[in-house]
Amino acid sequence: MTFRTDLEIAQAHQMIPITDLAASIGLSEEDIDLYGRYKAKIGLHVLEKFKERPAGRLIDVTAVTPTPLGEGKTLTTIGLTQGLGRIGKRAACTLRQPSMGPVFGIKGGAAGGGYAQVVPMEDLNLHFTGDIHAVGQAHNLLAAMLDASLYHGNPHDIDLHTITWTRVMDVNDRALRDVVVGLGGPVNGYPREAAFEATTASEVMAVLALADGIQNLRQRLGRIVVGFNRKGHPVTAEDLQGAGAMAVILKEAVKPNLIQTLEGQPCIVHAGPFANIAHGQCSVLADRMALKLVDYVVTESGFGADLGMEKFMDIKCRQSGLRPDCVVVTCTIRSLKMHGGVGRIIPGKPLPEEIRRENPAAVAEGCRNLAHMIKIAHYYGVPVVVAVNRFLEDTDAEVETVLREAVRAGALSAHPVTAWAEGGAGAVDLAAGVVSACERGGEFRLLYPDELSIKEKIEVLARRVYNADEVAYEPLAEKKIARFEELGWGRLPICMAKTHLSISHDPMLRNVPSGYVFPIRDIRVSLGAGFLYPLAGAMLTMPGLPSRPAAFGIDIDERGRVKGLF
Amino acid sequence: MTFRTDLEIAQAHQMIPITDLAASIGLSEEDIDLYGRYKAKIGLHVLEKFKERPAGRLIDVTAVTPTPLGEGKTLTTIGLTQGLGRIGKRAACTLRQPSMGPVFGIKGGAAGGGYAQVVPMEDLNLHFTGDIHAVGQAHNLLAAMLDASLYHGNPHDIDLHTITWTRVMDVNDRALRDVVVGLGGPVNGYPREAAFEATTASEVMAVLALADGIQNLRQRLGRIVVGFNRKGHPVTAEDLQGAGAMAVILKEAVKPNLIQTLEGQPCIVHAGPFANIAHGQCSVLADRMALKLVDYVVTESGFGADLGMEKFMDIKCRQSGLRPDCVVVTCTIRSLKMHGGVGRIIPGKPLPEEIRRENPAAVAEGCRNLAHMIKIAHYYGVPVVVAVNRFLEDTDAEVETVLREAVRAGALSAHPVTAWAEGGAGAVDLAAGVVSACERGGEFRLLYPDELSIKEKIEVLARRVYNADEVAYEPLAEKKIARFEELGWGRLPICMAKTHLSISHDPMLRNVPSGYVFPIRDIRVSLGAGFLYPLAGAMLTMPGLPSRPAAFGIDIDERGRVKGLF
Repeated sequence: MTFRTDLEIAQAHQMIPITDLAASIGLSEEDIDLYGRYKAKIGLHVLEKFKERPAGRLIDVTAVTPTPLGEGKTLTTIGLTQGLGRIGKRAACTLRQPSMGPVFGIKGGAAGGGYAQVVPMEDLNLHFTGDIHAVGQAHNLLAAMLDASLYHGNPHDIDLHTITWTRVMDVNDRALRDVVVGLGGPVNGYPREAAFEATTASEVMAVLALADGIQNLRQRLGRIVVGFNRKGHPVTAEDLQGAGAMAVILKEAVKPNLIQTLEGQPCIVHAGPFANIAHGQCSVLADRMALKLVDYVVTESGFGADLGMEKFMDIKCRQSGLRPDCVVVTCTIRSLKMHGGVGRIIPGKPLPEEIRRENPAAVAEGCRNLAHMIKIAHYYGVPVVVAVNRFLEDTDAEVETVLREAVRAGALSAHPVTAWAEGGAGAVDLAAGVVSACERGGEFRLLYPDELSIKEKIEVLARRVYNADEVAYEPLAEKKIARFEELGWGRLPICMAKTHLSISHDPMLRNVPSGYVFPIRDIRVSLGAGFLYPLAGAMLTMPGLPSRPAAFGIDIDERGRVKGLF
Repeated sequence: MTFRTDLEIAQAHQMIPITDLAASIGLSEEDIDLYGRYKAKIGLHVLEKFKERPAGRLIDVTAVTPTPLGEGKTLTTIGLTQGLGRIGKRAACTLRQPSMGPVFGIKGGAAGGGYAQVVPMEDLNLHFTGDIHAVGQAHNLLAAMLDASLYHGNPHDIDLHTITWTRVMDVNDRALRDVVVGLGGPVNGYPREAAFEATTASEVMAVLALADGIQNLRQRLGRIVVGFNRKGHPVTAEDLQGAGAMAVILKEAVKPNLIQTLEGQPCIVHAGPFANIAHGQCSVLADRMALKLVDYVVTESGFGADLGMEKFMDIKCRQSGLRPDCVVVTCTIRSLKMHGGVGRIIPGKPLPEEIRRENPAAVAEGCRNLAHMIKIAHYYGVPVVVAVNRFLEDTDAEVETVLREAVRAGALSAHPVTAWAEGGAGAVDLAAGVVSACERGGEFRLLYPDELSIKEKIEVLARRVYNADEVAYEPLAEKKIARFEELGWGRLPICMAKTHLSISHDPMLRNVPSGYVFPIRDIRVSLGAGFLYPLAGAMLTMPGLPSRPAAFGIDIDERGRVKGLF
């Protein structure tokens, strides 16, 4: 096997014209809008057109608590889709759209890797079909309307100190995290401290991901809270008369995007909200559409099962009625060793020697984290299959340890996956295991009912999911929780904003922390998205560029082709 | 004739599938990338493919000094294209892409009007094919790289006080005109005063408009100056290692976009730089491509002939080798009356009664402005045809006055145009006049040679184009002109940043001001675009929203269609 970069593999691949791919799943030329030869948007009327069709099986791919390098969840999602294809199943994956800012920072692309990729990967990682730009435009129009409202006499009597609506940009720009706007004299408005976040951190992105159609999108946009008036009542995008224009800006972005895997399965990419301050899932519309087009839909939820999968269940499934048939928990040997107490993985540095050395005992110890993730999935009544994203240096003894521990913890089956090197052929066993699990099925249930109070919900999460003993609320959080209950927001589900590097709130606590106090320092509302997000730590919502960003190496070559991207 | 809005006319129109339109001008499916059914990007290889074909005729549409309501230049450009079609000519128009921010402010769309429109107009005025978003992303990546460079030890020794590179956004947001970035502690960089401008004001937009291919785009991006180091030397995008990534971000945006007129002629829309701090033209690539595809190409230059047309000649034609065969000067009776000393037109208020009243004498007096514009066009050796954009309330006596005065001032012919109400049928006479003028031809020459000094060039413009007696330089401008000459930038053409509401620097001076001093308060460089821009007044490069912005009325209806747009 000669080593080729992801970009080389993707550029050398002969894609199927997207009209042909669409036709293969029953979509006519009227059902799609082409964006070049290999990308298309799917019209929302398709849901109505195919409403009598039975829905396929839904599989959510999640992970153990990841290292900062990630567990290969997207890779597994795509590889599993390709593996299902290899065993003769009609399968598709649904993915979040990666954002462009990080491409020029330290991050690689987010289109899988090796021989388990979706293509065209350059387009996917750059502007794609413009959806993230549309989200940014809608968000920033509302921000401009808010400041214009203050400038034109503040008719909504907004208390400047309560403004929570930021501006957004899809560029890693730390200098914009904390700014003062409105300087330069009275013609420029009122000076006030303000912030920029990454576009993917916008509530508009979460709204896009949770909306079930254009009218629902429009209504949700109207409910977005930008701040409070001097009487303490929320001021919304509807109050500012901005929600209609925002919906118009998003009228194409609301349509899911169709691309393909390297092995020709459909991949629907749509929306990409953050997985800490938001719920980190591709759109409800993407899943719904895919379920009508194929028999097996593989989707992905951000970070570990304590974070992304929990939100997949308690937010996305709660709001949409989507019901997963199977959960796949992905892990790597290196992360389980790290949870087992060996070494620490730091991005941009070589793997420490102790993590490279064979150590089945450390792997076994780290499998407590895997077992906890399986336990969380079982709270929802969904069968679990484990995937070990196998690297060349992993030994048989280490991999066997995980397979044994996974089944001991209640997984129906566990499988090594070599999709990076082999594509779908490296995920055939996993695919068979997933098909069995789907056939066995489960009895879906939510972790908590809407009726619990905010604090009760947080405590269910803290004890059962994060394995804490108790919850401590800072005074600000206490006060805001009480106010949110008064405002009638207590029925909303909780979207915990916490680190993804630990089951707990503390990124230094590996494996399965216990006997600790889970802290809530603040709580905020995304009323358009329909959740509350307590903050269990400082969440960075605008990345910065490192001293040698990826941008330094990206250029066009003498023939005008892209080089240095990934 | 029943009155219909531009949006109603556009929505009711049955467009030709863009693949069919492309085929009609010799473009195969391999030559274009579809963006939905009615928009496409044209591959740059088309220029090579058709290089042996003779080029068509190029017509530049300009205007008298406009009122704040505009003279209907885009309308005339599209109407003339349709009119050429009516008399059996193969014609196309090339237009700037309108930006999205102003759509939600006070401005209508920029796709012509009535029965002289290009479609799909909703798309054109919203995201279109994403080019403006790409320009913004490239611009803001460079800004982030600049601030990241300061944060990571300032290896280029940039003097913070000399930074001229802003950030941009395609939203009318006055609160961003003057900001402080980098607050919130050392992890967020160095606090410094900074600015946001409209994306169309970005030098990247001017670069896109002037580049003749992807490699030239790449080189121009590298030359962009972001500020100076502490030794007084310019620091460029190449120094910051950002130009390659910027080119990659722009790799699709560099391809011109194909849409259509209401009467089925091709329209190539590409790039849209400001017409004061930049040169205000659609791209060189758009014109070059159109000239290989049809026999008559009608393009438009921003504002009056003293501003947009002068820059069309002395910047765009100078750099590209493009040579116009004819200039069309557009005017309205209401603007000539205003120049003739009657009334004042204020946007958002009804036209004053004295402008609505018949007044051929005032029109005749205002024709001095028209005569001056004809004189400017003749400096370049190009024949002139005059178009009177006729309104229902204009009387025959008034229109006849303009036709007579235009010919007296040297126009080859002059024609009333009723394209708004009648489409191409309302521009048939104009089309015939333009064809005659093109056949007669001229002897193209530039207004000044590259070799003149910066001050000599400014003085040629001031005396011959702006009709001033002399030029006064403020000390800052004196100092910077001397420094720019030292840096070898003296050979660049001048892109004057001045008001469009007067031939002079003062928007209150109507008709043909004379005997005055033209002031230069500052001068800046767009080294990537390849021009210097002296400032003859304060240029607002970021609009604001009014108290009742257009956004208030824009929404989706119960069927999910756009309403309230224009």
